[in-house]
Amino acid sequence: MESRQPNSTDEIDLDHATSARRIQRLSSHLNPPLLDGAGAETAVSLMACAARAKLEVDTEQLSKYMRGRYRDVQQGVYDYFNSRHELQTPIEISKDEHRELCMRQLMGLVREAGIRPFRYVVDDPAKYFAILEAVGSVDMSLGIKMGVQFSLWGGSVLNLGTKKHRDKYFEGIDNVEYPGCFAMTELHHGSNVQGIQTVATFDPMKDEFVVDTPNDGAIKWWIGNAAVHGKFATVFAKLMLPTHDTKGVSDMGVHAFIVPIRDMKTNKPLPGVQIHDCGHKVGLNGVDNGALRFRSVRIPRDNLLNRFGDVARDGKYTSPLPSINKRFAATLGELVGGRVGLAYSSVGVLKIAVIIAVRYSLLRQQFGPPKQPEISILDYQSQQHKLMPMLASTYAFHFATSHLVDTYGEMKKTHDEELVGDVHVLSAGLKAYVTSYTAKSLSTCREACGGHGYAAVNRFGSLRNDHDIFQTFEGDNTVLLQQVAGYLLKQYKEKFQGGTLSVTWNYLRESMNFYLSQPNPVTARWEGQDHLRDPKFQLDAFRYRTSRLLQSVAVRLQKHSKTLGSFGAWNRCLNHLLTLAESHIETVILAKFIDAVRSCPDEKSRAALKLVCDLYAMDRIWNDIGTYRNVDYVAPNKAKAIHKLTEYLCFQVKNVAKEMVDAFDLPDYVTRAPIGMQAAEDAYTVYTQYAGF
Amino acid sequence: MESRQPNSTDEIDLDHATSARRIQRLSSHLNPPLLDGAGAETAVSLMACAARAKLEVDTEQLSKYMRGRYRDVQQGVYDYFNSRHELQTPIEISKDEHRELCMRQLMGLVREAGIRPFRYVVDDPAKYFAILEAVGSVDMSLGIKMGVQFSLWGGSVLNLGTKKHRDKYFEGIDNVEYPGCFAMTELHHGSNVQGIQTVATFDPMKDEFVVDTPNDGAIKWWIGNAAVHGKFATVFAKLMLPTHDTKGVSDMGVHAFIVPIRDMKTNKPLPGVQIHDCGHKVGLNGVDNGALRFRSVRIPRDNLLNRFGDVARDGKYTSPLPSINKRFAATLGELVGGRVGLAYSSVGVLKIAVIIAVRYSLLRQQFGPPKQPEISILDYQSQQHKLMPMLASTYAFHFATSHLVDTYGEMKKTHDEELVGDVHVLSAGLKAYVTSYTAKSLSTCREACGGHGYAAVNRFGSLRNDHDIFQTFEGDNTVLLQQVAGYLLKQYKEKFQGGTLSVTWNYLRESMNFYLSQPNPVTARWEGQDHLRDPKFQLDAFRYRTSRLLQSVAVRLQKHSKTLGSFGAWNRCLNHLLTLAESHIETVILAKFIDAVRSCPDEKSRAALKLVCDLYAMDRIWNDIGTYRNVDYVAPNKAKAIHKLTEYLCFQVKNVAKEMVDAFDLPDYVTRAPIGMQAAEDAYTVYTQYAGF
Repeated sequence: MESRQPNSTDEIDLDHATSARRIQRLSSHLNPPLLDGAGAETAVSLMACAARAKLEVDTEQLSKYMRGRYRDVQQGVYDYFNSRHELQTPIEISKDEHRELCMRQLMGLVREAGIRPFRYVVDDPAKYFAILEAVGSVDMSLGIKMGVQFSLWGGSVLNLGTKKHRDKYFEGIDNVEYPGCFAMTELHHGSNVQGIQTVATFDPMKDEFVVDTPNDGAIKWWIGNAAVHGKFATVFAKLMLPTHDTKGVSDMGVHAFIVPIRDMKTNKPLPGVQIHDCGHKVGLNGVDNGALRFRSVRIPRDNLLNRFGDVARDGKYTSPLPSINKRFAATLGELVGGRVGLAYSSVGVLKIAVIIAVRYSLLRQQFGPPKQPEISILDYQSQQHKLMPMLASTYAFHFATSHLVDTYGEMKKTHDEELVGDVHVLSAGLKAYVTSYTAKSLSTCREACGGHGYAAVNRFGSLRNDHDIFQTFEGDNTVLLQQVAGYLLKQYKEKFQGGTLSVTWNYLRESMNFYLSQPNPVTARWEGQDHLRDPKFQLDAFRYRTSRLLQSVAVRLQKHSKTLGSFGAWNRCLNHLLTLAESHIETVILAKFIDAVRSCPDEKSRAALKLVCDLYAMDRIWNDIGTYRNVDYVAPNKAKAIHKLTEYLCFQVKNVAKEMVDAFDLPDYVTRAPIGMQAAEDAYTVYTQYAGF
Repeated sequence: MESRQPNSTDEIDLDHATSARRIQRLSSHLNPPLLDGAGAETAVSLMACAARAKLEVDTEQLSKYMRGRYRDVQQGVYDYFNSRHELQTPIEISKDEHRELCMRQLMGLVREAGIRPFRYVVDDPAKYFAILEAVGSVDMSLGIKMGVQFSLWGGSVLNLGTKKHRDKYFEGIDNVEYPGCFAMTELHHGSNVQGIQTVATFDPMKDEFVVDTPNDGAIKWWIGNAAVHGKFATVFAKLMLPTHDTKGVSDMGVHAFIVPIRDMKTNKPLPGVQIHDCGHKVGLNGVDNGALRFRSVRIPRDNLLNRFGDVARDGKYTSPLPSINKRFAATLGELVGGRVGLAYSSVGVLKIAVIIAVRYSLLRQQFGPPKQPEISILDYQSQQHKLMPMLASTYAFHFATSHLVDTYGEMKKTHDEELVGDVHVLSAGLKAYVTSYTAKSLSTCREACGGHGYAAVNRFGSLRNDHDIFQTFEGDNTVLLQQVAGYLLKQYKEKFQGGTLSVTWNYLRESMNFYLSQPNPVTARWEGQDHLRDPKFQLDAFRYRTSRLLQSVAVRLQKHSKTLGSFGAWNRCLNHLLTLAESHIETVILAKFIDAVRSCPDEKSRAALKLVCDLYAMDRIWNDIGTYRNVDYVAPNKAKAIHKLTEYLCFQVKNVAKEMVDAFDLPDYVTRAPIGMQAAEDAYTVYTQYAGF
């Protein structure tokens, strides 16, 4: 594009300028110098923009802005494992060896490197999540093993128990002398936790609970740490209390109990506890998932995690909360941290994949213009289309999940009720949206890197296999999105008429009022770059879509519930509800991204972030252009301009793609793929050496 | 829906009728009884349809129609491996053990079961592909190992060599005494085969070729059978002939040579041949891919595969073809069978995945209306949305790839030039489209089956990892789609003015004439089911889109090539070209599907096929609704009706989903996933038994 700007090379010396011009000429053959066909106005405005902004990215400055507060502790994790080669997971390893290695890695982290994540679970979650992300990049099995030990098993003790539990278990959990499990899921019940069938019946004679698996469908399944290492398990079961009426026992709903499952010395299963191995998984084979069946296993009354409900010596039930449903919600509410961690770690995985795919696409050359050298595959429009919106999304998700982590930390401090609701929905929505996106992207990256992407050493296989289940555990994504939609509808119904909306969707009331009117036929035709790249237009478009989806689904639900009941009506509108939830999450991500661009202190970095932010916005609008067109929010000429701008921005981002992935600041010994080395000249060499040449 | 038809249960006895009504009432709560909001006309027409068609599927009849001519030989493969438990691949196996097992499997197939695929490669390709598909469902590594041995190594000898090669090698290839490789890809060159750098220089003194790897980028990479078992390799290299001028040698372009690489007795690499292991891959670890470097390896002149170009004793070059480019095209043209096999086998993989996912989704129950039993997850609209268009596509691809296999067989017999072109583009397009779709679907299936989908025993992991590379080998999908687009443009330019279009795109001339006019504003509003389910409307819509994309990209290419040259213009329009290619392939698939529906002799099966065909058509139109809306081919009311009809058809297909997957006729010992057992009552039991309960 610079070839049309006579002054653009004035400041460079002549030799340099000659070769630069040659490259520019070649580049103009390959790539869009200007939007074509989108009207003279757009073209002129892009010319102006290109003239004023020859984008230069200062990777160091941008990195500084991207780095979290806890980069130091992450570096500590990287350094420790980089220094202990015997603790690095080899490319090929059997399930059993992997499980043992993973345990040694965890022990090493805690006992040798002195990094103790457990203390941060409640007191400084942001630091905990930073450790989790770093540990996951060493081996995702280790990340999950750590999460099972500290967030799930440990977290359940801290968050659902009381002081007596903390006093008794903290030290052993912290130093991994008490490896433990989180036994919620059953063979027949995953998402529907209230449907679990394991029972814990109080025996007032012996002051004990008796834990039982009433049928094979109630076997605790997929329990991490259970197959080999776990000594304890937090078991979720229906609490049964004896009554004096004819029924004999009363179901008090799901509660959590600490059940010792293995002998501390021999590691043998304790009497009545039957443990089997869930076997080989698609990924995460360093985690020993097992299945637990209980046959009249007796535990002391003290082992009830009694923060939200307690049983006295005489069998009397007390609770600070008035109903089974409230207690259930409070119990599950304490587990929301797991989702925050997964959303955050998922972005970490996406960063690694994008770094490898972008660097290889810059390195790899294939085909070219007649009698000229081959060009890099990232010079192809199709490769830009695959990878550049993904790079932009990685930035977008980075800021959104960082925001989530901070909000979660604040919530843990203040227990502010509005924040609780906000974190609940934001964590559900971001976990679902980000992990689905990352899962798809890992496949795209493998495919985009061709045959060399299929070498296990280049990481896409293990990243995909390990990450895959992020879409399912800690809440199935399809179920979580429904929670988001449900919350939006609640807000819509209860608060639309004047109350306060919670922080993240304050925009809804505003935009609903605004958008219930018809789209403006004049702005629907605006296609200039200044307009399309204006954050106001972008946010308006995202919010408009969410508002319309919310309003229309509310109307449909009301209509159908008359004939189908609320469950039937919900199912009839389910696709619509999921689209609404995704639209809302995309809107929140964009809003956080725009904030992050504005807050960036370094001018060059701000310009680079603005570029990827625009690409994120345009890409998402274009992906859903049918919706915008259907309601004439966007006229045909504008739709075309959005498409062309998306392609143009992909090209622009391509020009700074190397710097943008370098700014994620992950050293080669973390990304580890030979084809994704930071210094391109090393890549093929390292790769051939790996094969033995 | 039946609850609104008072007569629908008349024929059932009363008890049965009562329970049926209860189920129907429940079902009407959960699912769309009728399209809502799409206008009274549509509603009435759907009512009529529902009344006249309570769909019953006779699985046996449908199976009969679906089964290929070579079901017997497939059954032979299934039976053999089912009877030889020691030849079945365990869930967990090391790379080295897997490679040896895979070789034993191949030996067993050929020498014990007496199934000899090699003889069918040229003489009866349909039978060869049937064996390949069946073998791939035993272990995809075995399928690929077999393909390397017989289609690639063996096929190159038969198709690129002459009688002397056939006489010398046929028997050894057929009985696997001569395991061999196909050494085309180099470290730096995959898609761009003409860019390979390995050289074979003729030495007239010794009447030999000298094969050399001039630099590390020219190392033959990813060569199947090379790391362990291969004794020979067909090596693609630039043929260099001595000249009498100052240049010394003349580059005659890429040719294929048989190079012995290992000692027949000791299995050690022969002098000058350096072999390394490419190592662990994302999947297909039963195939021993290796890297080959040649240092002055001498082979007899006879080892040139000389069908398209020969060197005489005195070094003189002769060829039936006039130019390097023609010879190169002829050489690669002979390899098109690989793509046919991959497209066909990919459908086989998709069938297995869809069977498992659908059966599990019918079995698995989670949540339900208040105080009622939980419902199956396939009752959820979202799950139908994930799986039913996939089921419909599996049927669509089955017919399209069967057609491709037949056409390929005919081409191999007749060598008809028109068929050659047709097969070339159809194999490129279907291979790309189907393998991309299957790859995405495997991830969708895993996710749709939640945690139990993550158990390795339930197959999605290995299917995905093994199938993944189908998108890349035998031609990168993005490159292949460009070949489709290129061929369409050639047809457009050369033949639009009156010549004969080849078989598959005869529609283009017709529709181009028709569609250069503006869309009809009246039909653009038609939304009745009779119209939307009319094959004419569906085909018109698909063809319209392809025609418009073709015409518009032709105009854009012409415009840009003036300033950017043809390579630059092509790249500027690359996304557009890929969309065009996909649109064309979708159109061909629909046309073949409609033919298959019409040709089905059994009425009930025909109705079932019509249902999934309609879903395939509606789903694809809705996926690209933005395009249709942008040019007002579809008015907003029609867009809405298409969307609603898609959801309605998903629900209708759900009601016969069990029968539709049973009709694929793959026994449990082929699908092998416990959660996907044909008899639902066995599924959880087999699964818990697998874990040791």
